[in-house]
Amino acid sequence: MKSNTSMEKTFDTNYRVMYNQVDTGARLTIAALGDYILDTAGMHATILGISMQHLASMGMTWVMSGLKFRILGDLPIINSHVSIHTQVSSCTKISSKRDFVVSCDGQTVTEASTEWLIINTTTRRPVFLSEVFPQLGEIVMPDTGIPKYRHLRFDLGDTDESLTHKTAYTDIDINAHLYSMRYLQLALNTLGMEYMRTMQVEEIDATFISEVLHGQQVGLHTASLDDGATAVEMRHDGKPVFRARIMARPRENQAG
Amino acid sequence: MKSNTSMEKTFDTNYRVMYNQVDTGARLTIAALGDYILDTAGMHATILGISMQHLASMGMTWVMSGLKFRILGDLPIINSHVSIHTQVSSCTKISSKRDFVVSCDGQTVTEASTEWLIINTTTRRPVFLSEVFPQLGEIVMPDTGIPKYRHLRFDLGDTDESLTHKTAYTDIDINAHLYSMRYLQLALNTLGMEYMRTMQVEEIDATFISEVLHGQQVGLHTASLDDGATAVEMRHDGKPVFRARIMARPRENQAG
Repeated sequence: MKSNTSMEKTFDTNYRVMYNQVDTGARLTIAALGDYILDTAGMHATILGISMQHLASMGMTWVMSGLKFRILGDLPIINSHVSIHTQVSSCTKISSKRDFVVSCDGQTVTEASTEWLIINTTTRRPVFLSEVFPQLGEIVMPDTGIPKYRHLRFDLGDTDESLTHKTAYTDIDINAHLYSMRYLQLALNTLGMEYMRTMQVEEIDATFISEVLHGQQVGLHTASLDDGATAVEMRHDGKPVFRARIMARPRENQAG
Repeated sequence: MKSNTSMEKTFDTNYRVMYNQVDTGARLTIAALGDYILDTAGMHATILGISMQHLASMGMTWVMSGLKFRILGDLPIINSHVSIHTQVSSCTKISSKRDFVVSCDGQTVTEASTEWLIINTTTRRPVFLSEVFPQLGEIVMPDTGIPKYRHLRFDLGDTDESLTHKTAYTDIDINAHLYSMRYLQLALNTLGMEYMRTMQVEEIDATFISEVLHGQQVGLHTASLDDGATAVEMRHDGKPVFRARIMARPRENQAG
């Protein structure tokens, strides 16, 4: 890891909302917003000398274990310019938390909290962050106050599958497993088009429990939680591999 | 349509290859390359005063009816900067052709030819381009010599379905139908991960025959053509909605 100046402890970049990154309402999709923050994390890690490419040379890689989005209103429309600010907000021996503030036209549109592990690419098991990057603590910034990702522990029991999917070539990412935002897309697909058109998603928590590989079949189960949120659990071979909790309210203007 | 200077008849832009735009080999995916050219076409159309947003105000929209990619070698790796040059190369009463040259580090990596229609968003039928934009002919540039899209006419008969898919929220684009690059992704998924890892795709032709809407189930059929290419046909309710012809050769280095 390079020696770090305070400048490098935070990272800012921006994206123009592309044609393929919006849904029928012409607004940035939640999955594309996730693409932005993952890409931003990768660029910041590269500057810090802890890039995925560097880890690959040591037989390791970063994986995201958890994600929280707090979406503060309508997401930006096509061709908008979206700014992203990121920093590492905490780390333990095996995980680090990274926060993001997403803004457009000077307004914060989303706050995000993520949790990351480094895994051995052969064993696919986590390694000690502190052994790979003993100086990681030096780049941790004071807490932003952004609501943090929380591990989801619900169990949807013997609910029916609402969606099944067999993973294919285009679902698989640079880490040779199901791309994290594809888990989230599949979860959103269980809610359906009409839900996404009429409801404003305000909060998403997502827990990535296990990798899903090419050609594996997953089933998605959904249920309503006591607090009004929707719970989605993805299973492979009967075991949970992913959970999401999605909180939404009816849109004021459903025309969009 | 605005009056056009010669400057505006061509358009250049660039993209950095994002984390989610590469496959396991860390190289730009063909679908993400397609995302770039569609986005580039949209930006150029906006400058020309013929944007999708402007058409929407008249109850119309652009749709792509055909696509040809000629891929000249390995696609760029993650974080590469990709430049795209585009121009309109011909137009008829109901369709226009737009060419693209995609380059990286000064080398052409892909040539693309596309064909476009304007449809009425209520009837979903094509309208006369010449009535919507009588001046369209003025922006046509001399032919680039890029190999042009050709309409695919094969019929795969009663071959077995090799993949089925029910379209969901995240498959649907701003035009409220299956996103063109999702057709292509589904076609590539019929070839499978091992094919995409070991083969170098050199040429893709794609014909978009009919719209596919949310919640519709499609089936994909594949066959080998006499020239060694792979034919893929997507059907809905037994009728072809999309065809692709994919020509590839074994990769020299299969490690990537």
